[in-house]
Amino acid sequence: MLEKIQKALMIRSCTIRELLAEALGMFILMVFGLSSVAQVVLGRGDFGQHLSVNLGFGIGVTLGIHAAGGISGAHLNAAITLTHCIFGNLPWRKLPAYLIGQFLGSFTAAATVFGLYYDALYNYTKGNFTVTGPTATASIFSTYPAPYVSLPGAFFTEFTATVMLFLGIQIIHDEKNNGALKGTQALLTGILVLGIGLGMGMNTGYAINPSRDLPPRVFTAIAGWGMEVFTAGHHWWWVPLTAPILGSLAGALIYKLFIDFHNQPVLESGNEKGQAVVETSTL
Amino acid sequence: MLEKIQKALMIRSCTIRELLAEALGMFILMVFGLSSVAQVVLGRGDFGQHLSVNLGFGIGVTLGIHAAGGISGAHLNAAITLTHCIFGNLPWRKLPAYLIGQFLGSFTAAATVFGLYYDALYNYTKGNFTVTGPTATASIFSTYPAPYVSLPGAFFTEFTATVMLFLGIQIIHDEKNNGALKGTQALLTGILVLGIGLGMGMNTGYAINPSRDLPPRVFTAIAGWGMEVFTAGHHWWWVPLTAPILGSLAGALIYKLFIDFHNQPVLESGNEKGQAVVETSTL
Amino acid sequence: MLEKIQKALMIRSCTIRELLAEALGMFILMVFGLSSVAQVVLGRGDFGQHLSVNLGFGIGVTLGIHAAGGISGAHLNAAITLTHCIFGNLPWRKLPAYLIGQFLGSFTAAATVFGLYYDALYNYTKGNFTVTGPTATASIFSTYPAPYVSLPGAFFTEFTATVMLFLGIQIIHDEKNNGALKGTQALLTGILVLGIGLGMGMNTGYAINPSRDLPPRVFTAIAGWGMEVFTAGHHWWWVPLTAPILGSLAGALIYKLFIDFHNQPVLESGNEKGQAVVETSTL
Amino acid sequence: MLEKIQKALMIRSCTIRELLAEALGMFILMVFGLSSVAQVVLGRGDFGQHLSVNLGFGIGVTLGIHAAGGISGAHLNAAITLTHCIFGNLPWRKLPAYLIGQFLGSFTAAATVFGLYYDALYNYTKGNFTVTGPTATASIFSTYPAPYVSLPGAFFTEFTATVMLFLGIQIIHDEKNNGALKGTQALLTGILVLGIGLGMGMNTGYAINPSRDLPPRVFTAIAGWGMEVFTAGHHWWWVPLTAPILGSLAGALIYKLFIDFHNQPVLESGNEKGQAVVETSTL
Repeated sequence: MLEKIQKALMIRSCTIRELLAEALGMFILMVFGLSSVAQVVLGRGDFGQHLSVNLGFGIGVTLGIHAAGGISGAHLNAAITLTHCIFGNLPWRKLPAYLIGQFLGSFTAAATVFGLYYDALYNYTKGNFTVTGPTATASIFSTYPAPYVSLPGAFFTEFTATVMLFLGIQIIHDEKNNGALKGTQALLTGILVLGIGLGMGMNTGYAINPSRDLPPRVFTAIAGWGMEVFTAGHHWWWVPLTAPILGSLAGALIYKLFIDFHNQPVLESGNEKGQAVVETSTL
Repeated sequence: MLEKIQKALMIRSCTIRELLAEALGMFILMVFGLSSVAQVVLGRGDFGQHLSVNLGFGIGVTLGIHAAGGISGAHLNAAITLTHCIFGNLPWRKLPAYLIGQFLGSFTAAATVFGLYYDALYNYTKGNFTVTGPTATASIFSTYPAPYVSLPGAFFTEFTATVMLFLGIQIIHDEKNNGALKGTQALLTGILVLGIGLGMGMNTGYAINPSRDLPPRVFTAIAGWGMEVFTAGHHWWWVPLTAPILGSLAGALIYKLFIDFHNQPVLESGNEKGQAVVETSTL
Repeated sequence: MLEKIQKALMIRSCTIRELLAEALGMFILMVFGLSSVAQVVLGRGDFGQHLSVNLGFGIGVTLGIHAAGGISGAHLNAAITLTHCIFGNLPWRKLPAYLIGQFLGSFTAAATVFGLYYDALYNYTKGNFTVTGPTATASIFSTYPAPYVSLPGAFFTEFTATVMLFLGIQIIHDEKNNGALKGTQALLTGILVLGIGLGMGMNTGYAINPSRDLPPRVFTAIAGWGMEVFTAGHHWWWVPLTAPILGSLAGALIYKLFIDFHNQPVLESGNEKGQAVVETSTL
Repeated sequence: MLEKIQKALMIRSCTIRELLAEALGMFILMVFGLSSVAQVVLGRGDFGQHLSVNLGFGIGVTLGIHAAGGISGAHLNAAITLTHCIFGNLPWRKLPAYLIGQFLGSFTAAATVFGLYYDALYNYTKGNFTVTGPTATASIFSTYPAPYVSLPGAFFTEFTATVMLFLGIQIIHDEKNNGALKGTQALLTGILVLGIGLGMGMNTGYAINPSRDLPPRVFTAIAGWGMEVFTAGHHWWWVPLTAPILGSLAGALIYKLFIDFHNQPVLESGNEKGQAVVETSTL
């Protein structure tokens, strides 16, 4: 019977399957990430501290990549998707499906975490959902800059953190260089994101990903925090959309200039792939 | 001589071997998990904080899977066993052996941790074992909802956390998609459970598993905490038995709808297995 | 030139090479472990908390196994060595070399950590090295039971924790069951020891290993703490020597009874090894 | 088009490629490491504690090795480069390129972290960048000994910690012994550095690497902290340059004396490599 249902529901369109994969992967990433922030904020430090958030997003990234990696490549980040389009690794016509999938997964995750922690939110805020103030809770869902950071400083933080993210992703996956063992790359990418949170998270909450930041922000605007989510922090909301894109592009260029351009033994021949296999086996 | 003893004691029944494997795996899972809760509660925070509990259960899951994985598949969770039966991956006639094995392992682990920490329990409670109050200790053994959570909210938390658990288990093990490297899946499953504890543990203590929750609760009822372990939290005890089953089923369906139904290249032919091998090798 | 020196110094005796390997592995284990205790105690919590100690010993075990595993099998624990002798996996005539190697490595590590933290020790204690009292420091080197624990309770803790240790070691390495990926077993064993520290460390400091406990105790007796290191805790010192041996034997028996006796497909034929290879490749 | 740019920019000189790889790897190591110190110091403990720093440097090392490992071998440490030259594993003529690459990467990382945290630094210090005092911030960039440590004690700490580092690196990579699984060695090396920080970090901040310490010190001298960065701690600055070199050499010798000299089955024949392969496959 299951086989019949499967046949009826089976989607053959690659693009829609990629959309679904990005949606599920993004949902998993965000449920783990946002819920760990919620537990730290609403638990007043008794159920985790800043390290929890860093671990939560790291684990979310690892699992999200396992979820979507075989179907869509698990970008789970609009800046990465765009970078792949610009460098010709993904056809432009697929861009909308990836972005829609990421948006839907991220938005649904925000709604799920809102549901999970509705009682705790109500108990913590007495029903008054605010973006700033002593019981501010908007930062559970999307990022806001610290009070001491200037807008250029915050922009530079998001830019740099995404440079490190994309550099890390490339080195972990580069089989011509010293990439991680196949099947452990998702784990390593999670550790990479953990490292970004440990060192580059204080200024801006390390969005480093438009798909991580915008959909939950839209959700909070609807769910009771109001339009202040877009005006807070000197209209901060557009920075996590733009800085990560520039950072991702810069990260790609830096890796090419420092390593990859000079590490292509058989440039013009067609058997690049075969070569890579040989190299790997003789490492 | 050892060989002779072995021959005498060797059990050839698959079902009993599976019962024993589930019992041992569950015992290991629960000794690591419960003892880490005990150390945090009875150590008043000096010997670990909430992260300890999350790590303890994660490590317990990893080791439990290594213990039972080659014999019974290491379900270590009645909700997962039931889901496998419903989806036809385990014959229904094996259900009782799995559940009994899990119950025995979990109950024995609770008794072991009680023995390990009897002196500390006595010192902490002055011999008065209570379910609530300033020196409540029942939560070392089984889960109780936080005071601020409504019963529907708590049910939804257990449901959602188990959805994430079963989604995670599937993606970690799906070789047709982007599963973890063979031999590291137990570790990844532990990391998955760590992530659930970091983000979805505050409301209800993340039972996400009838076999983790009921046997220690029965043990505490017998060992001195009394029947309040069943009445506390608005008769909370039945929720960790039911919500994880629904969550596990929902997780299975979500994965099929988003990924697995559409990711079956050779549906009707018999060489599905061979195909999977090829795919893996060309990843 | 290096080759000539090598030739001159090369030791061909297997037993001496094993002694050296156990010594180096034990030294590495103990330097990481003891120094992390020192940093927590002498740093008054600013340079790490209880988790540091658990991580320190876990990492020490992982690295110690990488150091000695290819030569001696990296027992790094007199209880494990003795268990292997009793079960016929190690000839009895090799026992002294293993124990001597472990003792020397452990003793030297204690001396090294004493040297590393001599200034800090002096600053913390004003030169008064004590086993008990507000600035007690003997517990940096060897274990002492918590004040609330009875001697039987402490003995049972060491026994049970070593049962879990040896159970864990067997499941991680059992290729016929669901062992960890080759080359990651040292890491998993470190995680196992981390888990023991997180959950079973509060009562007695989880010696679980005569070679971890006695040599540093002898060192402290010599280095200024005096004979109180042997009388403290109701002459506690002999428990970490005996309970782990019983625990290790019990762990071996439990694993055989629950899993291993029934999991030997080709008992009497000689091609057990070949069989194991086949099984692994079809997992 | 990309291919044309690539052709124009492609560097064929091995030495320059190695310089670039060491620079990028060192940059990644140091951005993760230094930024995690900055977040702990400037966040006043709310955004991480000492463990963050240990994890940050560990993750930085792992990623730095993935970045440079396939090109230069990822020394990322002048002491290691020098040791490889002395033992004949790296031609002396390559030494300058390695050192320059490491210096540039480390210096640029210090500048990047200064940029990242400029606003926070200004807010924390009110613009007064000092090496000592209540709002000292120089230790974000390079190491300083603790007030209680004597210079010999501090020297011995750096020496011993580097012995452990180089011992660890060798055991993780020794395929003739019990090295880590290929492709996971970078992760294990990160765990090694985490362990050093957990246990041997309190006295001196575990520089264990001239390339980690000197370039950021030069940066701080220029960027506003002044020449006190060289005079503080009894002119401490030269110790992290010299002690790690001696420690690295001693670590190499210890490993050879205890393990490696005696673990060379086919010393004079030419097929050592083939032998190693066979051994590995029969482990």
